[in-house]
Amino acid sequence: MNGPSTAGPSTAGPSMTGKEMHELVTRLYPLCRSITGDGVRATLDVIGEHLPLRVHEVPTGTPVLDWHVPREWNIRDAYVRDPAGRKVIDFTASNLHVVGYSVPVSATMPLRELRPRLHTLPAQPALVPYRTSYWSEDWGFCLSQETLDGLEEGDYEVVIDSTLADGHLTYAEHVVPGGEEEVLISCHVCHPSLANDNLAGVAVAVELARRLGEAGRAGEAGRRYTYRFLFAPGTIGSITWLARNRQAAGRIRHGLVLACAGDAGALTYKRSRRGEAEIDRAVAYVLESSGRPHRTLDFSPYGYDERQYCSPGFNLPVGCLTRSTYASYPEYHTSADEPGFVLPESLEDTAQTCWEVFQVLEADRRYTNLSPYGEPQLGRRGLYGALGGRSDTQQAQLAMLWVLNLSDGDHTLLDVARRSGLPFASVVAAAESLREAGLVAEWTG
Amino acid sequence: MNGPSTAGPSTAGPSMTGKEMHELVTRLYPLCRSITGDGVRATLDVIGEHLPLRVHEVPTGTPVLDWHVPREWNIRDAYVRDPAGRKVIDFTASNLHVVGYSVPVSATMPLRELRPRLHTLPAQPALVPYRTSYWSEDWGFCLSQETLDGLEEGDYEVVIDSTLADGHLTYAEHVVPGGEEEVLISCHVCHPSLANDNLAGVAVAVELARRLGEAGRAGEAGRRYTYRFLFAPGTIGSITWLARNRQAAGRIRHGLVLACAGDAGALTYKRSRRGEAEIDRAVAYVLESSGRPHRTLDFSPYGYDERQYCSPGFNLPVGCLTRSTYASYPEYHTSADEPGFVLPESLEDTAQTCWEVFQVLEADRRYTNLSPYGEPQLGRRGLYGALGGRSDTQQAQLAMLWVLNLSDGDHTLLDVARRSGLPFASVVAAAESLREAGLVAEWTG
Amino acid sequence: MNGPSTAGPSTAGPSMTGKEMHELVTRLYPLCRSITGDGVRATLDVIGEHLPLRVHEVPTGTPVLDWHVPREWNIRDAYVRDPAGRKVIDFTASNLHVVGYSVPVSATMPLRELRPRLHTLPAQPALVPYRTSYWSEDWGFCLSQETLDGLEEGDYEVVIDSTLADGHLTYAEHVVPGGEEEVLISCHVCHPSLANDNLAGVAVAVELARRLGEAGRAGEAGRRYTYRFLFAPGTIGSITWLARNRQAAGRIRHGLVLACAGDAGALTYKRSRRGEAEIDRAVAYVLESSGRPHRTLDFSPYGYDERQYCSPGFNLPVGCLTRSTYASYPEYHTSADEPGFVLPESLEDTAQTCWEVFQVLEADRRYTNLSPYGEPQLGRRGLYGALGGRSDTQQAQLAMLWVLNLSDGDHTLLDVARRSGLPFASVVAAAESLREAGLVAEWTG
Repeated sequence: MNGPSTAGPSTAGPSMTGKEMHELVTRLYPLCRSITGDGVRATLDVIGEHLPLRVHEVPTGTPVLDWHVPREWNIRDAYVRDPAGRKVIDFTASNLHVVGYSVPVSATMPLRELRPRLHTLPAQPALVPYRTSYWSEDWGFCLSQETLDGLEEGDYEVVIDSTLADGHLTYAEHVVPGGEEEVLISCHVCHPSLANDNLAGVAVAVELARRLGEAGRAGEAGRRYTYRFLFAPGTIGSITWLARNRQAAGRIRHGLVLACAGDAGALTYKRSRRGEAEIDRAVAYVLESSGRPHRTLDFSPYGYDERQYCSPGFNLPVGCLTRSTYASYPEYHTSADEPGFVLPESLEDTAQTCWEVFQVLEADRRYTNLSPYGEPQLGRRGLYGALGGRSDTQQAQLAMLWVLNLSDGDHTLLDVARRSGLPFASVVAAAESLREAGLVAEWTG
Repeated sequence: MNGPSTAGPSTAGPSMTGKEMHELVTRLYPLCRSITGDGVRATLDVIGEHLPLRVHEVPTGTPVLDWHVPREWNIRDAYVRDPAGRKVIDFTASNLHVVGYSVPVSATMPLRELRPRLHTLPAQPALVPYRTSYWSEDWGFCLSQETLDGLEEGDYEVVIDSTLADGHLTYAEHVVPGGEEEVLISCHVCHPSLANDNLAGVAVAVELARRLGEAGRAGEAGRRYTYRFLFAPGTIGSITWLARNRQAAGRIRHGLVLACAGDAGALTYKRSRRGEAEIDRAVAYVLESSGRPHRTLDFSPYGYDERQYCSPGFNLPVGCLTRSTYASYPEYHTSADEPGFVLPESLEDTAQTCWEVFQVLEADRRYTNLSPYGEPQLGRRGLYGALGGRSDTQQAQLAMLWVLNLSDGDHTLLDVARRSGLPFASVVAAAESLREAGLVAEWTG
Repeated sequence: MNGPSTAGPSTAGPSMTGKEMHELVTRLYPLCRSITGDGVRATLDVIGEHLPLRVHEVPTGTPVLDWHVPREWNIRDAYVRDPAGRKVIDFTASNLHVVGYSVPVSATMPLRELRPRLHTLPAQPALVPYRTSYWSEDWGFCLSQETLDGLEEGDYEVVIDSTLADGHLTYAEHVVPGGEEEVLISCHVCHPSLANDNLAGVAVAVELARRLGEAGRAGEAGRRYTYRFLFAPGTIGSITWLARNRQAAGRIRHGLVLACAGDAGALTYKRSRRGEAEIDRAVAYVLESSGRPHRTLDFSPYGYDERQYCSPGFNLPVGCLTRSTYASYPEYHTSADEPGFVLPESLEDTAQTCWEVFQVLEADRRYTNLSPYGEPQLGRRGLYGALGGRSDTQQAQLAMLWVLNLSDGDHTLLDVARRSGLPFASVVAAAESLREAGLVAEWTG
C-alpha cells in the first residue's frame, strides 16, 4: 500500500466551538501514537470523520532526504509485575509508561537490573515522563519517581508485547482548493497521550479546515491560496513529505506549524528563518493589532517541524504558532499534559488568530496608483465628504489617502496599515473603493 | 488674463522683526480669502508691497492634473435676520460666518428649515467654526453654539450676496535668483480670517524672501540655489502650480511647506515622503543642534500642500514645518485662531529656523580627500597648532581631521557634523581651509 | 644604515605574568623616548631582550606619504637655575621637564622672558605636563604650577644640551609566522616617561608575541594568520611603516592599536573606521560574552595610530583597544602617568582579552551545509543522544543544529554564536564535528 487512500466525508464539517475542539482532543488522547503504526492510523481515522483526508503510506526503508523511513512499531500490551505479582507499571493505564519504539521483552529480572531502564522525573516526582528511542534499538519504562521509590527489591516480571517490523509510515493531507500558490498548515501527530502537544494543534488545524470549507460553501469570492493541511509524525513525517513533494514545497508561499496550541499561556509566534517573510509580518500584525498578550521570537533550529521546512536548502516561509513554547512549561512531555491542561477558549483563540492571519494573507496586495501626480479628486468620484474645513477627517478617507500615497509598488496593504496605524480592514476597503473608481490597479511590477 | 503680471516693488524690502511680521498678519486678517476670488488678489497685493511678485491668473475650467480650475467665488455681504429683524449672523463682523463657496441666497424661511445649514461647534460653544463647500454647490452659515441656542422660532431672512462664476484662480511667485537647482517655499493663502493658519506662514515666507534679498544686496558669494516662494490656495493651488510647472518641479532639490507658523507651540517638522531627503536631515539637524524643543514626525498624506508635492508621481523632497500641527490644537479652524493667537517671537523663531536650514542647504557638500593615505601634514600648511602633547585639541583641528577622514564621496559635511558632534559651521570652515590648502576638492563622483 | 637589523633572541621568551609585564613597564619608564633618537633605540633594545626584533632605521628626509622623516633629536641634559644658582628644573629628575624636540639653548634671561616657555597645568598644580614641538623649531620646559609659583624674579640660567640633526627614524617589527593574511598589532614607542601611555601597550604586545611563540613551540595546528607586531613612534612612525609597506598593508585582515593598556579603568574598544569589520565584531563579542565591564566607541579620527591605518585611502580594519581612553583621565600626558598608575592585573586582563580575540579570529569561518534539505540524521553518525523526548537538549547538539541551519555562506561561526547565544567555543567544536562527519565544508563562495 504505497499510494494514498482517501478517508472520511467528502467535505469538511461545519465550524466547531472551543468545546467541540476540546472534545476532539479528549477523544484522541488515549490513542497510542508514535512515528509509525496503528495509533497514527486510528488518529487519522478520527480526523477523517471531520474532514476528507488523503492518507499516504510510505514503506519502511524508503529513502527520504538524508533519512530512511523506519520500521513500523506497534504495541499491544506492556507491564511490570513486582515480586508479589502486582502490576506496578501498566501500559493500559497510560501509554506514556512504555518508552516509544521499545523492542519486545519478556523476562524476569532483579530490580537492580531493571532499574537503568526505568525513567522518572526526580524534580516532578508525581509525573510520568515521555521518552522514545526511535533510532536506537532499546526498551524501557517511564513511571513517576514516587512509584519508583515504592518498589521493593526482588525479581520483577517484565513484558513488552510490541513488534518492530517492516511496514509503513503514515501521514495525511487535507487540501482546500484555491489558487496555485499554497498556504501550509502542519501539525505533528506522533505523540501518544499528550494533549497540548499536539492534539491541541490537530484540533485547531481541523477547525481551520472546516472554516475554510464553510466559507467556500458560502460562495465567497475565489480563494487566492490553496490551503494544505498536513497531519504527519514529527521530524521524519515532514522530512518524508518534503522528500515526496519537492514541487509542492516550491508552491508554498506561507506556512504555519501548529503546536502546543491549547494551554492557558499567551500566544507565541516564532518567525520563519527568513525573519521578514510575509507570514512573519502578517502574524505579527494580527497579534499586535488585536491587543492580545503575545510574544514573538526569532527563528531557532529547534522546536517543531519548522526545523525541516526552514532548513537552509528549503528555507520556506514557515513560522510556528504556539501558546506556551517548546520545553518551556512544567507539564511539557509529562503525564500532566492531559486534556484538563487544554482550555476550550485557548483553542478557540488560537484558531481565531490563524483565521485572521488567513484574512490578511488573502487580502494583502500591492497596488499602483494610476493617478500618481497630485492627489486625484476623490470628491467628484463620490469618495470624499463634500463639506471641507472640518477638523476631523473620516477614517475611510484617510485610508484612501494612504493607499494612494503608498501605491508605488514598494508597499503592500499591510505596509499601509502598519505605517498609517489604520485597521487592515479599512485599508483593504479603501483599496477596493479606489480600484473600483479606476484610481489604483493591482501592481504587476 | 492668463499670463502672469508683476506686482509690488522691484526688490524685497529689508528684514522684518517679529513685531513687523505680526503686523502683516494683522493687516491680512480681515480679508475674505478663498481658493479663488478677490480676497486672494487683495492678499497678494499686500504681500506685493513687501516683495516683487509674479501673479498668475488661471481661467476656470483649465485642466490641472486630475482636477479642473473651479469657478471663481466672490462675496459682498451675507446675513441672517431673526423674526424681530435683528442681524443675528453678520458676514461683515467675521467672514467665517459664511460657508466658503456658498451660492447666492435670498429667502425667508422658518428656523427649522434653516437649521441644517447652521454649523456650530457644540464642544466649543463660544467659537465659530470654519467650513467650506468648494466642490459641491451648497450654502450655509457658521456661528457659535451660544448664538444658535439663543435663536427663537420664527421666520428668518437669509441673504448671501455672492457670485460663483467663470473667472480665474490666482497665485503668485517670488523668485530669489541663484543656481539652477531650486528650494521651494510654499504657503497656502486660501483661508479667510484665520491667523495662524496660514497668515503666520505667509508672514514667515515674506520675511525669508526679504532676508535672502538683503543677503543678495550685501554682495554675498553666489547663491547655490534659486529660492522659489509660492503663495497659492491650498490643494487646488499647488496642483495648479505643479500642472503648469512640471519642468520647474524637476529642479526642486529641497522644499518646505510653511503653515501654522506662529502659535506658542514648539516647532514640528513633518518629514518628506522620502523620509531621509537632505531637507529632512537638514531640518532635523538644525532643530536638534539648536536645543529648541521640537518634534519630528514621519510623512503622512494629510496636512497641507506637501500632500501634493509628495504624491508618488512627483515624490519631491518637500517637508512641512509648523509649530502646533494640523488639526491638533483647539483653536484650529475656529474663530479663536485670530491675531492674538500668533506671537511675534514665534514668527521670528520659525523664520530663524528656516534661515538656519537654508545655511545648511547652501553649505552642505561632499568632498574628496586628495591626500587620503595617512593624515596629511597639517602643520606645514599652517593648519595645525605647533605645540603637541596637549590633552585638549582644538575644535577647528578636530573638524579638519573629521573632514579629511570622511571625505570619501560617501559623506556630506552635514554627515560629518552629525558623526563628529561638531557644529556644522566649524565643519564647513574646516572644509574650506582644507580646500584652500589643496587637501580636499568638491566631489564630482 | 637604511636596511633593517635584527636584535634580540632568536625566539620569543615564555609567557609573562602581570607582575613581569609591570616590571617591563618600570624598566622602560626612565628612558627619554621621542619620535626619533637613542631613547627609541634603547627601548627597542630592551624589548629585543624578550623578542627577536627586526629594527628599521629610516634616514632623515625620506619622503613618507605626505610627510618627510624629520631630523633626529637627542638630548643629554637640560636644566634651569634660579638667580641663587639652584636647579629649579632638572631634566635628569624627569625627562618630561623638557619640551620634546627642543633645540639647544644656553642662555641667561630674566624670568619674565623665560616665562612664556614654561608650561604648567594650572588646574593640576602638582603635576608636570608633557609637551612636544616636533614640527616647529622651538624650545621650552614643563614644570608644575607649584614650582612655577615659587620662582622669584631675577636672571635664570637656561641650558638644553640637545642636538637636532640629520639621522634616522627607528622602528621595529616582530613577526610570528602563519598564513599569508596578517593581523597587525601596533603600539607607539615615542612617549618619554609616561607609563600607561604607552609602556603598558608595549608590555601587552610583548606578552602577546610571547604567547603566540609559545603556542607555536607547543606544536599547535598551523596558524591561520601571520601576526605582525609594530613598535614605532606615533603618527610619523605608522606613516613611515605604511609608506614602506604598501603591499604588507594590503595583507592586513585585522588589526589592533594597543594604548593606555594598563590603568585600572574598564576596557574600551574603539571600532575601526569600517565599523562592522570582523575585528570589530570579534572584540565586541569577546567583551560582551566575557561579562567584563567595557565600553565600545565608534571610530573617530583622533586618538592613536588607527588614525593613519583608518585614513580613507587605506581604510584598514584596525581598531584601538585601551582601558581608559585618550585624553579622558586626569593623569593623561602628565607626570602622574607613572608606573604606579599601571596595575599588573590590568595588563594581564588586556593581554587575555586580546588573546581571546585572536582565538576568535583564528577559528571564525564560514561553512556550507552539504546536506541542506531537512536536518541530516545526526543520530546514525553518532552525533546525537539516542533517547528522544527529553525536555532538555544538550548544548553540543544545539550548537550542531545552529551550525547546520546557518551554514549558507551568509553566516560565520561568530554570527552563529551571536544568534544562538551559545559560547563561540561550542559552536567551533560543533562545526568541527560536522566537518569530520562530512556534513559541512568550509565555504569557498
